[in-house]
Amino acid sequence: MMDRRFMRESARNFKPYYSPTSDGSLRLDTNTNVLGPNPAAMDALSDLSDAEINQYPNTYSADLRKVLAEFYGLDPNNFVTGSGSDEILDVLFKTFTDKGDRAVMPFPSYSIYDYFSELNGGVPVLIDLDEEFQLDVDSMLAAEGKIIIIPSPNNPTGNAFRRSDLVKIVEGTDVPVVIDEAYGEFHHESFIPLVRKYENLIVTRTFSKAYAMAGLRIGYCVCSPEIADMMTCIRIPYSLNMVSEKAAIAALRDQDFIRSSVDMVEKNMPMLVEGLEALGFKCYPSNANFVLARSPIDHKELVKGLKDRGIMIRDFGHRRLLENCVRFTIGTDEMNIRVIEACEELTR
Amino acid sequence: MMDRRFMRESARNFKPYYSPTSDGSLRLDTNTNVLGPNPAAMDALSDLSDAEINQYPNTYSADLRKVLAEFYGLDPNNFVTGSGSDEILDVLFKTFTDKGDRAVMPFPSYSIYDYFSELNGGVPVLIDLDEEFQLDVDSMLAAEGKIIIIPSPNNPTGNAFRRSDLVKIVEGTDVPVVIDEAYGEFHHESFIPLVRKYENLIVTRTFSKAYAMAGLRIGYCVCSPEIADMMTCIRIPYSLNMVSEKAAIAALRDQDFIRSSVDMVEKNMPMLVEGLEALGFKCYPSNANFVLARSPIDHKELVKGLKDRGIMIRDFGHRRLLENCVRFTIGTDEMNIRVIEACEELTR
Repeated sequence: MMDRRFMRESARNFKPYYSPTSDGSLRLDTNTNVLGPNPAAMDALSDLSDAEINQYPNTYSADLRKVLAEFYGLDPNNFVTGSGSDEILDVLFKTFTDKGDRAVMPFPSYSIYDYFSELNGGVPVLIDLDEEFQLDVDSMLAAEGKIIIIPSPNNPTGNAFRRSDLVKIVEGTDVPVVIDEAYGEFHHESFIPLVRKYENLIVTRTFSKAYAMAGLRIGYCVCSPEIADMMTCIRIPYSLNMVSEKAAIAALRDQDFIRSSVDMVEKNMPMLVEGLEALGFKCYPSNANFVLARSPIDHKELVKGLKDRGIMIRDFGHRRLLENCVRFTIGTDEMNIRVIEACEELTR
Repeated sequence: MMDRRFMRESARNFKPYYSPTSDGSLRLDTNTNVLGPNPAAMDALSDLSDAEINQYPNTYSADLRKVLAEFYGLDPNNFVTGSGSDEILDVLFKTFTDKGDRAVMPFPSYSIYDYFSELNGGVPVLIDLDEEFQLDVDSMLAAEGKIIIIPSPNNPTGNAFRRSDLVKIVEGTDVPVVIDEAYGEFHHESFIPLVRKYENLIVTRTFSKAYAMAGLRIGYCVCSPEIADMMTCIRIPYSLNMVSEKAAIAALRDQDFIRSSVDMVEKNMPMLVEGLEALGFKCYPSNANFVLARSPIDHKELVKGLKDRGIMIRDFGHRRLLENCVRFTIGTDEMNIRVIEACEELTR
């Protein structure tokens, strides 16, 4: 009988990831770009006639890493790419933690960190954020992890962490410190330039959020050449396909769409927040393209009611410190009005 | 100082994967399809205008798994997809081996197996093939692995293993037995139908070889729903991007190109083999789209000489049991003539 006894012990109670059926709903549950596909990437995809898809792609994405280096004024050896930043995260735990090693991360935060840590045999150590969802720096450092991972802006709380706190953590340890800037484009304050200063700093980025290319699975990290070399030996060769690499290069070279996407979020967030607060929601401050809100009615009822009205948001109401909280991706004006009207029906 | 002390112990001596510069050379080193890109896939790529690349792809490739199920007369729950079959292989070791667990595989074989096994904390146990490059069934079973992995046809030797030997291994153990059919299309004898009979059998396949889509990174495995469920909890969500999923579906539905690719290899292999043997090479029997040959001159000299003449082949001459051996992908008539002429210059 084939059952979970045959599985790696640390993964035996794992379940599949969030995977709802969408059937045409408005997706405000995954923080993708609501303005639609990245136009420069679509343009690159419109002529693939000379793509030699019978050949393997660049083993380690040499072309994309060259363009990333130009974009950031760094060297190609400061970059590692992956099939989504999720692959980068998996590679990080696989590179720097062994069975039983502690991986330190804030709570509440992106749940894939503890999943990848456990999956790779590690022991996730979750350090509670304070009431303002800011870091407990001393506890993060005292936890003695073999790796520390912190998203900023944080998901699902939305806030960026204080720069001085992050610096204290990077300076306070020799182990690799990962700052996951999946929502970094919305925050205007990146740790990427500091990889030249801190050998143990790793900043991860994705093309899935502001860049509007989640469907193509492209992520990367920026770090010292020493760390990049270690990760390169661990990541799966060829993992970034050649079509996505081409699209990513085109998208990086056209920043107008990114700027207007970020502008749209900044412009529209206040309206959504005010609308929700007028209905009794408590919204938390956000530096990203989404907002966490404590619902005035039961979170399950709210999420189901919105789904019935063709709007998907993400439910976090069952998690400790996030009791009755849900997460809304910031939409266009039209989308936000639709969200507020639907919430009004459900809360009155 | 950031150095390899911070790395997972089992990976500290790892090096980056085979990644030569090709600069326009004829690539007969990676066993990709020499007839060029898969035409049905290229057709699918020619109109991506309705691809919503800003959204995430199917979390677990539901569309491709449905078409695979129709193609093989199985259920979507018999399939797990990945970004190349390399991701599938990585997931297999991560699912079924824990730190210190033995993974049994033949030698010589595909070197990525022992790499992934070690990377995921396991202990690869390599069991020598006999003089005809066939399996030592008793030793494979006696090695007490938590997983057994066997490519058939084998790479780089080229031969398929005896069906009866493979059946003995699958029946002789309760642990998962992986038969890697990366070159399965060239062999006409698949273990895929047997996943209904053997709950511990997993067959892996790729779109990188006969399907001529290596650049898009698509692989899958066929297995019992129980195993597929475990692997689904382990694999990275969304790892197969939406463009590759679409291209794979189109390619599966058009088998003409696959048939002509397989026919071309069968037709052209004898000419290449005879040409090489006339020059003093010893060629080993192959059921795949490549041939392993023992060189009459020093392997390094041969590989470098061919590279200087714009032809890349793969060097295995430094490996035990493969002393002075190299591997040629079977080319078109024209390519094979070019190869033989270049070898003639080098060996005379």
